[in-house]
Amino acid sequence: MPTLPVTTRLLIACPDTRGITAAVTGFIANRGGNLLDLDQHTVAEHGEFFLRAEFEPGPDERDPQALDIAFREVAEQYRMSWRTGWSNTPHRVAIMVSRELHCLVDLLWRFGAEELPGEIACVISNHPDAEDLVVDAGIPFAHLPIEDGDKAAQESKVQQMLQDHGADLVVLARYMQILGPEFTERWRDNLINVHHSFLPAFPGADPYRQAHDRGVKMIGATAHYATPDLDEGPIITQTVAEVDHCDSVVDLRRTGRELERSVLARAVHAHLEDRVLVTGNRTIVFR
Amino acid sequence: MPTLPVTTRLLIACPDTRGITAAVTGFIANRGGNLLDLDQHTVAEHGEFFLRAEFEPGPDERDPQALDIAFREVAEQYRMSWRTGWSNTPHRVAIMVSRELHCLVDLLWRFGAEELPGEIACVISNHPDAEDLVVDAGIPFAHLPIEDGDKAAQESKVQQMLQDHGADLVVLARYMQILGPEFTERWRDNLINVHHSFLPAFPGADPYRQAHDRGVKMIGATAHYATPDLDEGPIITQTVAEVDHCDSVVDLRRTGRELERSVLARAVHAHLEDRVLVTGNRTIVFR
Amino acid sequence: MPTLPVTTRLLIACPDTRGITAAVTGFIANRGGNLLDLDQHTVAEHGEFFLRAEFEPGPDERDPQALDIAFREVAEQYRMSWRTGWSNTPHRVAIMVSRELHCLVDLLWRFGAEELPGEIACVISNHPDAEDLVVDAGIPFAHLPIEDGDKAAQESKVQQMLQDHGADLVVLARYMQILGPEFTERWRDNLINVHHSFLPAFPGADPYRQAHDRGVKMIGATAHYATPDLDEGPIITQTVAEVDHCDSVVDLRRTGRELERSVLARAVHAHLEDRVLVTGNRTIVFR
Amino acid sequence: MPTLPVTTRLLIACPDTRGITAAVTGFIANRGGNLLDLDQHTVAEHGEFFLRAEFEPGPDERDPQALDIAFREVAEQYRMSWRTGWSNTPHRVAIMVSRELHCLVDLLWRFGAEELPGEIACVISNHPDAEDLVVDAGIPFAHLPIEDGDKAAQESKVQQMLQDHGADLVVLARYMQILGPEFTERWRDNLINVHHSFLPAFPGADPYRQAHDRGVKMIGATAHYATPDLDEGPIITQTVAEVDHCDSVVDLRRTGRELERSVLARAVHAHLEDRVLVTGNRTIVFR
Repeated sequence: MPTLPVTTRLLIACPDTRGITAAVTGFIANRGGNLLDLDQHTVAEHGEFFLRAEFEPGPDERDPQALDIAFREVAEQYRMSWRTGWSNTPHRVAIMVSRELHCLVDLLWRFGAEELPGEIACVISNHPDAEDLVVDAGIPFAHLPIEDGDKAAQESKVQQMLQDHGADLVVLARYMQILGPEFTERWRDNLINVHHSFLPAFPGADPYRQAHDRGVKMIGATAHYATPDLDEGPIITQTVAEVDHCDSVVDLRRTGRELERSVLARAVHAHLEDRVLVTGNRTIVFR
Repeated sequence: MPTLPVTTRLLIACPDTRGITAAVTGFIANRGGNLLDLDQHTVAEHGEFFLRAEFEPGPDERDPQALDIAFREVAEQYRMSWRTGWSNTPHRVAIMVSRELHCLVDLLWRFGAEELPGEIACVISNHPDAEDLVVDAGIPFAHLPIEDGDKAAQESKVQQMLQDHGADLVVLARYMQILGPEFTERWRDNLINVHHSFLPAFPGADPYRQAHDRGVKMIGATAHYATPDLDEGPIITQTVAEVDHCDSVVDLRRTGRELERSVLARAVHAHLEDRVLVTGNRTIVFR
Repeated sequence: MPTLPVTTRLLIACPDTRGITAAVTGFIANRGGNLLDLDQHTVAEHGEFFLRAEFEPGPDERDPQALDIAFREVAEQYRMSWRTGWSNTPHRVAIMVSRELHCLVDLLWRFGAEELPGEIACVISNHPDAEDLVVDAGIPFAHLPIEDGDKAAQESKVQQMLQDHGADLVVLARYMQILGPEFTERWRDNLINVHHSFLPAFPGADPYRQAHDRGVKMIGATAHYATPDLDEGPIITQTVAEVDHCDSVVDLRRTGRELERSVLARAVHAHLEDRVLVTGNRTIVFR
Repeated sequence: MPTLPVTTRLLIACPDTRGITAAVTGFIANRGGNLLDLDQHTVAEHGEFFLRAEFEPGPDERDPQALDIAFREVAEQYRMSWRTGWSNTPHRVAIMVSRELHCLVDLLWRFGAEELPGEIACVISNHPDAEDLVVDAGIPFAHLPIEDGDKAAQESKVQQMLQDHGADLVVLARYMQILGPEFTERWRDNLINVHHSFLPAFPGADPYRQAHDRGVKMIGATAHYATPDLDEGPIITQTVAEVDHCDSVVDLRRTGRELERSVLARAVHAHLEDRVLVTGNRTIVFR
């Protein structure tokens, strides 16, 4: 039994109709809950309804399972997709990384400094570069290279490691291998990736070089849920920085790393506070 | 009777307790209303509760007065400060201006282009400079100078003009006279001002000169509700721009005007959509 | 003869070698000029050299033609592309527009308020919508529609109008017709366009709708020199704004208009102060 | 003797007059130097001239001392304040910190990843918290607490440590003690501090609490050269982030830490590339 105040977060998506919010808030109030924060969003043209509620459950209602069972009746009435998160059950986060460590270093520090809620479950890499850093921080590390081009075998080991360490979120912190559809499907909406982004877009190799040669005045980075379509999943956060002709390709890359670590941390933060709902190929990120 | 869909906005502030949102959304649902948007904010440490709901009232409930009367019971139960706004009853906006016309020109265009919802009731100035511009746009204009230093007399005329034209919001679009406490009190929470802002602050004359001599790297602008304490009222919106040593005082002033018109328009927009609640000396600006 | 201080701006691009800046600044100093501002940029990997100098010419050197002739010797020695601009010979700007007037209104006001240096030569539109606005401002206006699909004929009339009014810069302020290669070639590096931009890119119709459905968290706008490749010319300025799931398509379009007018004004400003050099498909925008 | 290309940076401030840039670039060219980058800034109203030049010295001119001696003649003619920096003589940076380690962690990583040029000479703290982190990174660390309130004694030890490790720049990375005037004078223009900044300003204790209670919509951070006047020295870089009523005091502090580490890194970067000139109480930060 927790002694600190506990809060429950309830995330709901369903077809729009009258009375949903009244039913949800009535459910919470009737069970002695104290609503702390409610944000509701309706997309009229698609008939979609989205809601995030954060509340202190009543003193006798602090059993997640019991609450879930009780809520099912409301959920079924309105054909809801829904889930709950509990502040005393922190998310367990696995980080996957290749050779560029800037996002990893940043995430390790943020979790260590409690800038990010949740626990790091483990770090997995297809390269050994990060090992010392991670082990020194007392975090389980696995070097799982792709051997003989057998990606399926490697992903299976990754999957085992994630399961062994009870991860519920995987963060691709500059993991430079394309993950197979089975993997991305297994982790759908719980797999966050970060990549650069430019106006206009520069597909293909060495986008910073292309952006430099095109003389762009802004570069950006995007964090999104990974899907089988690579960098095309639902966007969670985006950021940009101004650049100019004085910036060399090296400068652009450095600025890009800065943007990546910032935008990834913000996306992870939103996910860990149960603020993100995915609908189709886009997200609702509740404040 | 309107033929277009009508929406009602309900803004509430009250002491926090259990069940408020359930009571409000229940009230809406029971009267056939369809909730479009609900945002609720609780400040736990102060025990404060804030809510904005936007809904389509039920087909037989489109009489503002009847709805207000019906809601009183809920409001009293929870000791609410509250108000309603109706999309088919646009706000009527008076603009006060002195000699710098950049904010006025911007607002005129935005209202004309329907970038801003609402109607311009009239424009009042202590100088004649804006007259042609305003009259050409078909908007009532009054040149009300302060004569013989008698501010009270002038403010009384301003007050009469505002009343005659049915204004419910006054925007100080670079109006360079300090308004008396009676006036600011009369228009409390309905009187928006804009001014420059700097890090650090530069009180006194010619702040752009001071900012330049201090070598600031950013300048800003703030829109806020005016109070008797001058530029100290509740902040609605703020914005900044980067500057550097290449910017002359003239450049800083030009950038400042750009910021002022942008930040003022955003503040007016939020107010006109009934998104702003004032509590103490700060605002809740619902998205 | 001007009585106000006159400044000359010298813009140079040439192959990089030793001594160029010394030669240029020596030329200016030897003729009694007072250098106010010099910015030089070298792209080592391409062997490119770029320079902008702004100086007060010596008291006996205020004849542009004489200065140009004198400078030719230096220019030829270093195989320079170069041009000069004089503060007392303001640029003459033609604005082309279709039915969306937000950029036009903004530019008219900025020129009128001397926020932008230079003179408006004329406004040309393929629609009549802007006529009253422009004529009221005392600016020559031509409604030149494309008749019977004969674009060449219309562009020829546009060209005549530009020549008649002595324009040296053409600003496409939401002009929604694609200009032919002859036209864009004639106005190469003196033809500024503005368009929306997104991360990722949304080609095709109704990009704001696409951006909304994709759930982007930022939208942008780009001002660039127009080339026969449409929206692919050298970028001058870019800007972005954060958006979120609360923003409807209408909101995105409104924010987009805001970005367009701001980014276009900044690009025009840089051009009018002779701060922009084009090299290949990119720009050097000197501060 | 370095085998990589070496560049020299020359920073100059002097009274404005004709011919300075010509003299400097002539000096460089005459000695076989290849100018890579030159940026010149004149403040006409104060008659001030500032210049930064970066150049590859001629093959026989790679002796800093000889170049300095040779340049003296030019410098004296124009009464210049000036200094040179050499890319093959990196700055040596000491970091001072108290208990909040976010800026330190960030700087350690950036130097380690070569995001920042230069070498960390040592880390000094009045608390032991950072010791493990610093020692693990193989960097000299000294815990120098203020004992019996004797600041002068402690500052003397700090001064000794800085000298022993050959530091030429001191970065106050959330060092929470006020340094005495002797110390700040000794390190004038080579002592960088970071602090929060707000619009409006909130002097006194717990500014984030004050900012929250005032409902600000933006918070910022400023990096500046420290002077005896505490937080009033010449500003190098500033940054801001948008916040709103949803942000608790804890959120504001977290965002503040994010801003602090970012703005401090940018200021240190500019200093290490010899891009900053101080004049009076402001800086010229050359791009």
